[in-house]
Amino acid sequence: MSSIVQVKLPHTSYKVAIASNSLSQLGSHLEPLNLGKKILLISNPEIFDYYGDLVVNSLAKSGFEVFTHLIPPGEPYKTLDSIAQIYDTALENRLERSSTMVALGGGVIGDMTGFAAATWLRGINFVQVPTSLLAMVDASIGGKTGVNHPQGKNLIGAFYQPRLVFIDPLVLKTLPVREFRAGMAEVIKYGIIWDQDLFSQLERAKTLDNLDSLSQELLQTIITRSCQAKVDVVSQDEKEAGLRAILNYGHTIGHAIESLTGYETINHGEAVGMGMVAAGKIAVKLQLWTEEEAKQQDNLIAKVGLPTGFPKTLEIEKVIDILQTDKKVKAGKVRFILPTEIGKVIISDRVSSEIIRDCLSM
Amino acid sequence: MSSIVQVKLPHTSYKVAIASNSLSQLGSHLEPLNLGKKILLISNPEIFDYYGDLVVNSLAKSGFEVFTHLIPPGEPYKTLDSIAQIYDTALENRLERSSTMVALGGGVIGDMTGFAAATWLRGINFVQVPTSLLAMVDASIGGKTGVNHPQGKNLIGAFYQPRLVFIDPLVLKTLPVREFRAGMAEVIKYGIIWDQDLFSQLERAKTLDNLDSLSQELLQTIITRSCQAKVDVVSQDEKEAGLRAILNYGHTIGHAIESLTGYETINHGEAVGMGMVAAGKIAVKLQLWTEEEAKQQDNLIAKVGLPTGFPKTLEIEKVIDILQTDKKVKAGKVRFILPTEIGKVIISDRVSSEIIRDCLSM
Repeated sequence: MSSIVQVKLPHTSYKVAIASNSLSQLGSHLEPLNLGKKILLISNPEIFDYYGDLVVNSLAKSGFEVFTHLIPPGEPYKTLDSIAQIYDTALENRLERSSTMVALGGGVIGDMTGFAAATWLRGINFVQVPTSLLAMVDASIGGKTGVNHPQGKNLIGAFYQPRLVFIDPLVLKTLPVREFRAGMAEVIKYGIIWDQDLFSQLERAKTLDNLDSLSQELLQTIITRSCQAKVDVVSQDEKEAGLRAILNYGHTIGHAIESLTGYETINHGEAVGMGMVAAGKIAVKLQLWTEEEAKQQDNLIAKVGLPTGFPKTLEIEKVIDILQTDKKVKAGKVRFILPTEIGKVIISDRVSSEIIRDCLSM
Repeated sequence: MSSIVQVKLPHTSYKVAIASNSLSQLGSHLEPLNLGKKILLISNPEIFDYYGDLVVNSLAKSGFEVFTHLIPPGEPYKTLDSIAQIYDTALENRLERSSTMVALGGGVIGDMTGFAAATWLRGINFVQVPTSLLAMVDASIGGKTGVNHPQGKNLIGAFYQPRLVFIDPLVLKTLPVREFRAGMAEVIKYGIIWDQDLFSQLERAKTLDNLDSLSQELLQTIITRSCQAKVDVVSQDEKEAGLRAILNYGHTIGHAIESLTGYETINHGEAVGMGMVAAGKIAVKLQLWTEEEAKQQDNLIAKVGLPTGFPKTLEIEKVIDILQTDKKVKAGKVRFILPTEIGKVIISDRVSSEIIRDCLSM
């Protein structure tokens, strides 16, 4: 089973290739891209243990000279310091402008590799090989790269597009179930903001809370439709001037929750799930959305095994405060993405702190 | 006296405005650019002492809220660490995506400010106000931004275009004469690679080795024609895929000299001057250029008060070694820009280490 989603942007285009059991063919997929000889493969030790040999052998078989750089897993390493270490490895191995950095890992590895590739020698080639569901359907597509500032997620970064996104859904078998569910939060998001039919398919599935209960067909569909939704939006607005903001559905409050809990206790997908529940409540409160639709959404979030309530320890005033430093603040006003029906959202600037306060304490 | 050079690129365009005694009108030049309210002005303490008040007042008069970030002068501070400190100031003052970073200073300040602007919130507005001749005619135009790696100049960076380049030639009056001469190296470069008429005008001038001996007209001409030459080249090749490489005339060996002497003993313009002398010799050796033309070039370099010989302490083998790590290396071959007549150069990959060795020891 395989599908291709084509990304067409004003000054570049690339493919998202989704094919089961294809990881050992990565090398031959890179050959037509006219890349230089050298590849720096960036991963974390755990992922590299699972798939490193397979990938390195595949690249070597296609004639590439492969170097490896491993970064410990997790958000705490998503720092400018880790990028400086990638630069050191790049220099040591004398990467050239025609060389390529390949990200083998989840969103953290992808974001960091992309930023390093964007800023080494003012930009070298970059390929995404996402290994988490979250990275497959979201982070690997669209060219957002970056690292965290000690005081805020992804404040440092660049828009930089990959030459190829290469997805083998089979690698999800080694993904912890909690990570799988986190990825499903973004899949549900695409259902709400863009693809009503994807939402219905998810509703019809018997179970969704672990990989083993999904058919290969449904998994392929979920990944392909999600990638297509992301590509549709990004193609119309590469640099987040307007439309692209809708991808932040659930993320406004989600980011605040992550930031306040130190990016560790609650993962990104869980925070987005909570953020969608909150945004749904706000939309209902503002009479944009029906209670029934909000319930459909919340049920689906519960069905994939994600929490729908906020952590009891979360101080609501701190959430409100942190929303003010969010990079999507415009002239001091917090922007919210709010659903009007399943498959459609609007961008709103008229959400007051009072409404946020009310909905978070519900 | 004033002139405008228009930069037109595939996905952006901007003006280079050159006008004597215009610094106090910076604010009104920014008004039509549709920028956000907040401006982070980045400079070094010395430049800020001279022109800070003038600039801050001008911006404030146009309704901008101005914050200031100062970086100690010189290449040793052109580091990722200095960028991290700019990020801290940006966060502290809650810069938004619509905010602007303004570089008031020489090439180091411009390159760093551009890189910080390119990578803060994945890219905010950026304005160049160059105060050195080198920055006016070269660094401020074309979107090359970045910092040094401990082992190589400008290895870390991004292509990121300013919204405006604003040049007041009058500020050169506070520029040390050694810096003025360094800038003249790039002016001569434009004569050699692009503008035979500029070269002739320089030859006709009585003296060129200090600002006071230049008429206002000649200074305006020198800056405008140099900017135009840079813009002509950059417009045809924004990302250095081909033609733009000719701007590196004199820079291949120049960078090696700077790197080996720690970026301090010999400044950028002096190194470029030496690099042009070397490249000229190589071109003569390869029978691309006449000895007479090389002599015209070397005479002009001497006329602006720049050294034409290499430092005696320089180890030639180290220069050769460092050329191998230059980011313009392609498949292991060092690329050289070589003149074929005054106003025309070619890009050559056929320069052997032996020829470089010969010409450096002449």
